[in-house]
Amino acid sequence: MIRVGIVGATGYGSRELLRLLAMHPGAEVCAVTSESAAGRPLCEVLPALRGLYDIQCEVFHSNLVAERCDVVFVGVPSAKSMPFVVPLREKGVRVVDIGPDFRLSDPAIFEKYYGERHAAPELLEEAVYGLVPMNRAAIEKTNLVAVPGCYPISAILPLLPILKAAKPETPVVIDSISGITGAGRTPNDTYHFPEMNENVRAYSVATHRHTPEIEQALGANTMVQFTPHVAPYSRGILSTITVRPTKKFDVAACYDMYKDEPYIRILGENRLPEVKYVRDSNFCDIGWVNDARTGNLVLISAIDNLIGGTAGMAIQSMNLMFGLDERTALSRPGMAP
Amino acid sequence: MIRVGIVGATGYGSRELLRLLAMHPGAEVCAVTSESAAGRPLCEVLPALRGLYDIQCEVFHSNLVAERCDVVFVGVPSAKSMPFVVPLREKGVRVVDIGPDFRLSDPAIFEKYYGERHAAPELLEEAVYGLVPMNRAAIEKTNLVAVPGCYPISAILPLLPILKAAKPETPVVIDSISGITGAGRTPNDTYHFPEMNENVRAYSVATHRHTPEIEQALGANTMVQFTPHVAPYSRGILSTITVRPTKKFDVAACYDMYKDEPYIRILGENRLPEVKYVRDSNFCDIGWVNDARTGNLVLISAIDNLIGGTAGMAIQSMNLMFGLDERTALSRPGMAP
Amino acid sequence: MIRVGIVGATGYGSRELLRLLAMHPGAEVCAVTSESAAGRPLCEVLPALRGLYDIQCEVFHSNLVAERCDVVFVGVPSAKSMPFVVPLREKGVRVVDIGPDFRLSDPAIFEKYYGERHAAPELLEEAVYGLVPMNRAAIEKTNLVAVPGCYPISAILPLLPILKAAKPETPVVIDSISGITGAGRTPNDTYHFPEMNENVRAYSVATHRHTPEIEQALGANTMVQFTPHVAPYSRGILSTITVRPTKKFDVAACYDMYKDEPYIRILGENRLPEVKYVRDSNFCDIGWVNDARTGNLVLISAIDNLIGGTAGMAIQSMNLMFGLDERTALSRPGMAP
Amino acid sequence: MIRVGIVGATGYGSRELLRLLAMHPGAEVCAVTSESAAGRPLCEVLPALRGLYDIQCEVFHSNLVAERCDVVFVGVPSAKSMPFVVPLREKGVRVVDIGPDFRLSDPAIFEKYYGERHAAPELLEEAVYGLVPMNRAAIEKTNLVAVPGCYPISAILPLLPILKAAKPETPVVIDSISGITGAGRTPNDTYHFPEMNENVRAYSVATHRHTPEIEQALGANTMVQFTPHVAPYSRGILSTITVRPTKKFDVAACYDMYKDEPYIRILGENRLPEVKYVRDSNFCDIGWVNDARTGNLVLISAIDNLIGGTAGMAIQSMNLMFGLDERTALSRPGMAP
Repeated sequence: MIRVGIVGATGYGSRELLRLLAMHPGAEVCAVTSESAAGRPLCEVLPALRGLYDIQCEVFHSNLVAERCDVVFVGVPSAKSMPFVVPLREKGVRVVDIGPDFRLSDPAIFEKYYGERHAAPELLEEAVYGLVPMNRAAIEKTNLVAVPGCYPISAILPLLPILKAAKPETPVVIDSISGITGAGRTPNDTYHFPEMNENVRAYSVATHRHTPEIEQALGANTMVQFTPHVAPYSRGILSTITVRPTKKFDVAACYDMYKDEPYIRILGENRLPEVKYVRDSNFCDIGWVNDARTGNLVLISAIDNLIGGTAGMAIQSMNLMFGLDERTALSRPGMAP
Repeated sequence: MIRVGIVGATGYGSRELLRLLAMHPGAEVCAVTSESAAGRPLCEVLPALRGLYDIQCEVFHSNLVAERCDVVFVGVPSAKSMPFVVPLREKGVRVVDIGPDFRLSDPAIFEKYYGERHAAPELLEEAVYGLVPMNRAAIEKTNLVAVPGCYPISAILPLLPILKAAKPETPVVIDSISGITGAGRTPNDTYHFPEMNENVRAYSVATHRHTPEIEQALGANTMVQFTPHVAPYSRGILSTITVRPTKKFDVAACYDMYKDEPYIRILGENRLPEVKYVRDSNFCDIGWVNDARTGNLVLISAIDNLIGGTAGMAIQSMNLMFGLDERTALSRPGMAP
Repeated sequence: MIRVGIVGATGYGSRELLRLLAMHPGAEVCAVTSESAAGRPLCEVLPALRGLYDIQCEVFHSNLVAERCDVVFVGVPSAKSMPFVVPLREKGVRVVDIGPDFRLSDPAIFEKYYGERHAAPELLEEAVYGLVPMNRAAIEKTNLVAVPGCYPISAILPLLPILKAAKPETPVVIDSISGITGAGRTPNDTYHFPEMNENVRAYSVATHRHTPEIEQALGANTMVQFTPHVAPYSRGILSTITVRPTKKFDVAACYDMYKDEPYIRILGENRLPEVKYVRDSNFCDIGWVNDARTGNLVLISAIDNLIGGTAGMAIQSMNLMFGLDERTALSRPGMAP
Repeated sequence: MIRVGIVGATGYGSRELLRLLAMHPGAEVCAVTSESAAGRPLCEVLPALRGLYDIQCEVFHSNLVAERCDVVFVGVPSAKSMPFVVPLREKGVRVVDIGPDFRLSDPAIFEKYYGERHAAPELLEEAVYGLVPMNRAAIEKTNLVAVPGCYPISAILPLLPILKAAKPETPVVIDSISGITGAGRTPNDTYHFPEMNENVRAYSVATHRHTPEIEQALGANTMVQFTPHVAPYSRGILSTITVRPTKKFDVAACYDMYKDEPYIRILGENRLPEVKYVRDSNFCDIGWVNDARTGNLVLISAIDNLIGGTAGMAIQSMNLMFGLDERTALSRPGMAP
């Protein structure tokens, strides 16, 4: 039984980890820390979990957590993971960080986009970018996984297999639409229910922090124009990626590399993913249209941002790190309707 | 491994059965029938299930289904179950009917509310009303379960334990609010997205078919005024039950009878359920307020109409019928957010 | 041209006043005050108004406001109106208060429900409860109107005409469902989009502050059991009122008193209002069902909480106070879809 | 008083016309035709209009309509307008068609995208594309206006002023998100509430019928890659337009041409429109971001698809055709919240 800790238990990513782990036959949650909820029973803080957990939230102490846990998921805001990850790694605890602190290999780019100096650059070499289909072997062997951002997962999985064949003009245009859980759990004017209901907005145009993460994964020559949007629903990302290939190529053949991936579903040409078919699941659905008139290729992908885009991908990494079937606790169908 | 059949695979209740059964370690779906989808792969009809099922929808033939299945869930509109249930029972197949045909013990009341003569009154004696907390022992032994309606589950579970102690004035007022999956999957003017979004409506006031089902469970002397409403969301029922007791009594003590129920959570006085904490789960949450000023007791309950109100309750019955741990495949936390 | 001021410009009620007044041919907004937005152009604070107003938000000074305005709408939280109303009335400015401070004639009840002593009981006699259909003549002559609460409007309008004929058993059960604008504009955990989307909840059961307001209007002998709910949409209230008459009577005849009301639509027996038909309008729709089986009468009403439940009712009062056609700026059809 | 007729009264565009015309001081609705609703009072068919119209729906007879109307709005599905427009124009009635039949000047392109031969090519020369800011003078003089499609309005208004200065690489990428009223009022599986709630989908990728309309307006050399999406809300379009200029230029200066437009609001650089600020209004809001890193210009526009994208634009044309102030009945602020 893997002994699991969760740091930052009340964020949306961590809640989802707790939800999935409640049904994981090979893992047990042994420590849950939260600044704001320390001292309270987890199920009072997160009433959906009542009857399924009997554990208290506590203040983080690296010694105590290290004693009780084999692996710790860290789910805190950007630039806040490092103070937790460093002592845990020093004590030999494996870490799966669902925040951005260990995703970018170049600390200068981290500083540019996140506005803070990287506090643990020495760990960046150990950290594996936890995009399972790309880095499965490395994940199996590492002690520190940086789970990718939700938008990057939805963009990299469809784009990476076709880049070499397509040699697209750049920047590639990525317009993504996300549910509002992507904006986190902290109440604010923008996402107060009556302000966001019946609304759609673009944000962080030209400046979104996931931009360098996408470009790092795609390789130095593929610049992207990434524009995120939010629409009035809770979960899921649909990414529309407009590619202008400079060569003819066979799209379906490129995706053959995914044929054994348990959670990538290639729908094929002219078959388009929708958020509802992946919600509450770990799947990434991918489809595309070749526009003969314009010469463009339009890729569409869909994920649940909290599972396939965060917690599911994180648990898949954990399963690999501990030698379990990577699908454990993850083969749940989407919730439709 | 229990061999399971589903009749009427594309309705919302059946979809939910398929979703839950995909994660059931002791059951395998061996036959799926559908008039409208016969001949098509299940995963083409219900794309959320892609990658999890490899089975075709087919036309119903009782012989073939009986050969391949130990138990069949029937999920078809009211008054349409009987033609499926009769031959299956004749061939010795166990049946769990998620429709209303076998819920009411008096065929005259069935006819009054459903507008058709009951076609199989001889099966009514065998049929057990599948409200697990009330009828667990009978469910274990029966071959035919009539899964309760979603509104009745939300009303009977909180009301039944207090009736004897409260001796309430009647009719008891039950105002329920449901998500729109409760209205089924057939497109119509009323539930076309732009017609129902940002809308709330009451319907079937004084005439809803779940009324006699609630009264049958509560006993002859408890008349109810049941008013259902729909609001613009997909899943979940919140029922507000206004009780006027004629005697003082201890509400919490009445609910002690539920202390070992795996899926009833008694929140206590002045602690109110919300739909979001039970969505995507099999739980029924119950709380209440004693209004000293008016002398009334206000009970609030919340369920997910498709799981705790249909498919979860149905699988719990199946587990009991086959001697499995009744919680198998059902101890999933709610989806919040 | 009536010179209008708005105190507390950024609350949802005030925004709606500004929206309606932008199309009022006989009124001009001459002062807009706001603590939080003072010094900023109104259209920067409320971008929906861009191009329609050219005015700055300012700090409240009673002298300046009194100089520039014939009438002032006060839209601030409960117990906060009094410090604005008192100096404005002293200076002879007419006031329409959309908050609760002057609705209850008994300051002891105000204190009990709002937790603060009433700071201006001397104004309570002058204040007219601004429920236009009941108090039209008094509103025409007063200088201080207390606009009713949104729930009370939805409950009193259908109930008051039938009380004498029905002599109902009490408490009368009122279960209301509201959109989330009713909870105000201040962001909080409960109404953060992902927390309230796909959720339904009851709140303030047995203790809601609109209870004494409803009972005051209905008269001393009519106790009510008022349970408010919120569902995931922005605007509108549907109230379901379960009445147990002690005598037979003709419901339609009771509503004849409304036959000349411009904004009450009596739909008739077995014809039920829906929120979508009144949204964005000043109408209150009323329908009912006589349940022969139980002997109960179920009344259903629908209003837009921000127009028919607040700003529309307030402007109708202003129109009456200034001798205009009371329908000015108000005869807008609902937004459906 | 302009005497107005509406053909196809129950579609969403026509409903919106009726809603706006109810508040138009210079127009009176004198005839309303509908195949499905003929013989029924308009307010029974569209209950939101109760109390505001006293007129019956009728079958279309060109003579009767021509006698009673100075102008007729035609709101029927694509390729269905022509049989109404031809006889009305023959009888000298002015027509404003909110469908697509008279938007494309080349009947061959109409046939290619709409799958039917154009039945009235002789009227194409008379027809003026009713995009008011571009064609105001022609609209004033014509007797036949083809109101633009909603997506084209959201794309052409921001794009056209910058084309000459930007000389962008093509195809220009237009990713639009629409509310579900854009899909019309006919119930279907795709837009049944539980199927579309919490969902996002792209559709008609590479083939949407608004593509040639956009390209016709932009001029022969500007090819576009137009990908429409729907998200779970009722009204409004947000269009994100990614432009790759081949020259440096001053974006704000290009938009000076709109400085006197009553319903275009140029927000400026780094100030982004949102659907909520234009909903229920005739405004088109436009903002942009210059991405120095990529060299791209990202334009964002927002409209209410039913007002600024259909009915408002149509009434603005009518006002111009009849010499009224073009703003009559249209200067309504958006509904926020």
